[in-house]
Amino acid sequence: MKTFTEATAVVAADGALEADLDAGWAIGDKLHGGYLMAILGRAVATTAEHPHLVSMTTTFLRPPAAGRARVTVELLRAGRTAGQYRARLEQDGQPCAEALVTQGLLDRSQPWWGRAKPPALPAEDECVRLPAQAPGSPFPVPLLDLVEHRLDPAVLGFAAGQPSPDGQTAGWLRFADGADWDPLSLLIATDPAPPISLTLGLTGWAPTLSLTAYVRRLPAPGPLRFAMRSSEITSGRMDEIVEVWDAADTLVAQATQLAAVRV
Amino acid sequence: MKTFTEATAVVAADGALEADLDAGWAIGDKLHGGYLMAILGRAVATTAEHPHLVSMTTTFLRPPAAGRARVTVELLRAGRTAGQYRARLEQDGQPCAEALVTQGLLDRSQPWWGRAKPPALPAEDECVRLPAQAPGSPFPVPLLDLVEHRLDPAVLGFAAGQPSPDGQTAGWLRFADGADWDPLSLLIATDPAPPISLTLGLTGWAPTLSLTAYVRRLPAPGPLRFAMRSSEITSGRMDEIVEVWDAADTLVAQATQLAAVRV
Repeated sequence: MKTFTEATAVVAADGALEADLDAGWAIGDKLHGGYLMAILGRAVATTAEHPHLVSMTTTFLRPPAAGRARVTVELLRAGRTAGQYRARLEQDGQPCAEALVTQGLLDRSQPWWGRAKPPALPAEDECVRLPAQAPGSPFPVPLLDLVEHRLDPAVLGFAAGQPSPDGQTAGWLRFADGADWDPLSLLIATDPAPPISLTLGLTGWAPTLSLTAYVRRLPAPGPLRFAMRSSEITSGRMDEIVEVWDAADTLVAQATQLAAVRV
Repeated sequence: MKTFTEATAVVAADGALEADLDAGWAIGDKLHGGYLMAILGRAVATTAEHPHLVSMTTTFLRPPAAGRARVTVELLRAGRTAGQYRARLEQDGQPCAEALVTQGLLDRSQPWWGRAKPPALPAEDECVRLPAQAPGSPFPVPLLDLVEHRLDPAVLGFAAGQPSPDGQTAGWLRFADGADWDPLSLLIATDPAPPISLTLGLTGWAPTLSLTAYVRRLPAPGPLRFAMRSSEITSGRMDEIVEVWDAADTLVAQATQLAAVRV
């Protein structure tokens, strides 16, 4: 089994970069958006002057299959404290995802000012691990074997056929292989399972149109906590807003996405 | 004085599109981010199969000056219900902003599900209009003559030299010329004045690195209300999260931005 770092590796090939998309990082037969974002981010890092991904918006065009994919990176602006890039993932000559990325320097400093609070959540061992193959689920979620999702029991009604109108989830995240989190793997945490639509009783796939992630600081070792909520589902589109906190109780990432849902 | 629609017009020129950036839509000597976004959005609309801007992330590279600018649009994917585009604003051969855009169809339908609530705000005539030239302000804000910002008196301490640690603002927005709002002009409302940093006592410019806006439905006639908050300021970067509501009490737009601040 490949580590996250191995599964998101990019190598130089034909004047661009090549990734080997790993079938394990999937929801059903679709590769996870955060996994594809991490590959784009790693490709940017190979050329960037500043070490860390600070901001990334990815627009998803076509779901790629597992296997080889080509990544191209273009510098849009080199700055003293930040670099801005465009990155694109292609497979078989077709664009699959395109991203706008800001690179900068992250650290573990305290906020100059802050009002965000970590989610109120039962202890990790009192939360419930989502299985990769849930009874009655229309498809397996291999990603859940690689990234352990332990959800607050209060948000798990959907799994027992009792959707909730709350429109929020929260839980703990750990790599099954014990790896610590880093700015690129935090991108996985910005799109946690399940989508809010599923907790509301909509069982269809909710493909992300666009996901914006900000990485706020280097994560401390240990598990992450996330809290996700939606504002509304209108005209077949759902927003999802996520905060990700590290084991030292600091906000490490934030994300917003717009997804398509069938109601 | 040009209307918003006139000030954001694009015309075909030399195989691309040309805009005439209007000095009125500015904060100090910098053109407003939402104004530049609206020009990019209008350029996309000239070629798009679907009528409305649904999602847009813009990364700001260099502040353009008033005057001529070139806009190019590339189709990334044509879909049945959505089209995805890249748009770029250039001046004097230098890229100033680049955006990823999703076009689709908006309407005024009620949400299938929703939990968002409009901001609690005093009546419009009990709120305080921000002047374009505030006493003691280091620079004028011509935008405030075109887009009337009436702020909740509870968030106005900063204007009297008494910053608040709350990190939130809320207010009413109207076009001074009486124009109604549309999906492109809503982009102006996704970046309302002042930045949260100013309400916290940081008087410097807070340039947006990247702004993501989702337009959720067609706005009803009448004024808008916005609520903006930040989560934290860390390592010289601030997030700002905005909701925009129309006169019919429906959520019409949401936005998230990451800005640079000097602390």
